[in-house]
Amino acid sequence: MIYFTPGPSQLYPTVAHHIQQALANDICAISHRSAAYKAMHQHSVEMLRALLQIPTTHQILFFASATEIWERLIQNCVSKQSVHFVNGAFSERFFAISQELQRPCSKIEAAWGEGFFFDAEVRRVLETHRTLDILNFTHNESSTGVMQPLSIVYEYAAANPTALISLDVVSSIPFAEVDFEKIDATYFSVQKGFGLPAGLGVLIASERVLEKAISLENQGISTGSYHRFSQMWKKATQFQTVETPNILGIYLLGKVAEDMLNKGIDKIRTETKEKAARIERFFHEKGNYSFYVKNKEFRSPTVLTIDTLRPSAESIAFFKQKGFVIGDGYERNKGKQIRIANFPTHQVAEIADLLGF
Amino acid sequence: MIYFTPGPSQLYPTVAHHIQQALANDICAISHRSAAYKAMHQHSVEMLRALLQIPTTHQILFFASATEIWERLIQNCVSKQSVHFVNGAFSERFFAISQELQRPCSKIEAAWGEGFFFDAEVRRVLETHRTLDILNFTHNESSTGVMQPLSIVYEYAAANPTALISLDVVSSIPFAEVDFEKIDATYFSVQKGFGLPAGLGVLIASERVLEKAISLENQGISTGSYHRFSQMWKKATQFQTVETPNILGIYLLGKVAEDMLNKGIDKIRTETKEKAARIERFFHEKGNYSFYVKNKEFRSPTVLTIDTLRPSAESIAFFKQKGFVIGDGYERNKGKQIRIANFPTHQVAEIADLLGF
Repeated sequence: MIYFTPGPSQLYPTVAHHIQQALANDICAISHRSAAYKAMHQHSVEMLRALLQIPTTHQILFFASATEIWERLIQNCVSKQSVHFVNGAFSERFFAISQELQRPCSKIEAAWGEGFFFDAEVRRVLETHRTLDILNFTHNESSTGVMQPLSIVYEYAAANPTALISLDVVSSIPFAEVDFEKIDATYFSVQKGFGLPAGLGVLIASERVLEKAISLENQGISTGSYHRFSQMWKKATQFQTVETPNILGIYLLGKVAEDMLNKGIDKIRTETKEKAARIERFFHEKGNYSFYVKNKEFRSPTVLTIDTLRPSAESIAFFKQKGFVIGDGYERNKGKQIRIANFPTHQVAEIADLLGF
Repeated sequence: MIYFTPGPSQLYPTVAHHIQQALANDICAISHRSAAYKAMHQHSVEMLRALLQIPTTHQILFFASATEIWERLIQNCVSKQSVHFVNGAFSERFFAISQELQRPCSKIEAAWGEGFFFDAEVRRVLETHRTLDILNFTHNESSTGVMQPLSIVYEYAAANPTALISLDVVSSIPFAEVDFEKIDATYFSVQKGFGLPAGLGVLIASERVLEKAISLENQGISTGSYHRFSQMWKKATQFQTVETPNILGIYLLGKVAEDMLNKGIDKIRTETKEKAARIERFFHEKGNYSFYVKNKEFRSPTVLTIDTLRPSAESIAFFKQKGFVIGDGYERNKGKQIRIANFPTHQVAEIADLLGF
């Protein structure tokens, strides 16, 4: 079976080898306070920095999941107002977390299958808030296959210079080419684009995020406990974590980032576009299918979401018989859509096999 | 190298094989909402229930670490008073988490190297609180090698029937034989006694824990977001988790629990005692060493803590040369002690090798 599901997905081809090496080198047995651990952690951070071109102003913090990062961002960064740009199940869930944490929050909505323009009406709504702690964007809504153009996110950032900007790149990284100078908190989990076992979330945070967290602490607002950004940041500068982390996960992330660096990030991004175009062309010619995201400017090349004329279970079963696992529509679109992940792990030849049956 | 460090420690001997199987069976690629995932999750839960004799009244919840469980217990269970029995670095850290979360808390202290008796003075202090939400005990203080007799914990439980009782068994499980009818929240991380890669915490919670969490929610107290016990419990009854979890970790826990069940938990516990007695005898005869925990009733068989007359670095280097990694003293005892883990992964023959140089 080859998994074309939008997360968890097929492991990156080198992962099995790296796990062997990890076992041979006792990576799981070393103390997280040892020099050996720190060297490993540093390697992972440096490979990720090199791959994604992360500036030294930004720190890399490790969590258990992107879901946890949602919680920690709100705890550490919001006292006055968190604004969520909501256009699908995952951006909606992040908004719900703000509510559950009882921090002031509001949402700006677009229909499922659509994204956000730099809209006068939206800007007017944003201006009604005296203080905006953070504007939260989802680069790639895994539930709908909408990829929000980053140029529009940057426009909102420029128009709101005192607000932090967060960006969910869970199902677009490492394809996503983020200008970190313009984004304060970019985050993802590793089981999608990096093709790693689930259980690790990564936050790339600017110094403004740290300053905000410290300012909340100084106001006596609880920013959590062991995963307060102020504590995590300190440890991160020493290539350590506060608690015993998912050591194997951090190791594997570094190794796969290194592999991707060796392959070339430009090549990975070009291949992603080519593979997406191939899949699009196939379903376009096929009939009985149409793309859910009508505006091509917002159509994701990493999660392709396709309306099926007949129940999606038929397509899913058909592909499964051929050895390919693809995703169903999400929540309200279950049974009416298929979703196909197009991550770096998915080889050109595999896409050809998927489409060539 | 064989790791006798008190966590992370040597992997359980079958782990490498199980990881191979996991990769061969695409465990890391399956969706956490699929039937295949649920069957895997159920197997892990059932093996753990069988191994530790966990009653059906108790639910098994998965977290990223025992550190996270500290935070979640306080968030979900404390509005009036959390009392911490503190006798080392880890019980102290749990207390600090209560403070950081700004929930009412206090501590009852014993000196490092000592444990708690069912003491009249302590009982008087407990009676000064109108409402006790939870009493927090550490079964095995990894920083000092004190194992608190469970009989005394049960006495405090019986004397405070309305309070929840929590028990940290991080470095004593599965040796610890817990009477779950008397303990509401038993928790551990998997990288110690289970010999698994770090990145998974397990909470065995009674229905009283769930009731307390719901009661706090009903009072409008924020109990967190995605890891609110009320949400986690619901998902757990369907053998699922709220977020994409550490799937490989949950799989491996089930497999190793099954292996331990096949070996026999009684045999594992008997061997642990025999191996501990052997290590004790060795250092007793050796001279230049003495046991840190003077009262034998409180001396841990799973983390043996030994004062060294000469700097501990010498002993650590000596053992390392022979292929064995042992632990240093913790924090204030660094340089003055060695700590040797005696977990199920540490085979009788390895202990003989360790001592037989």
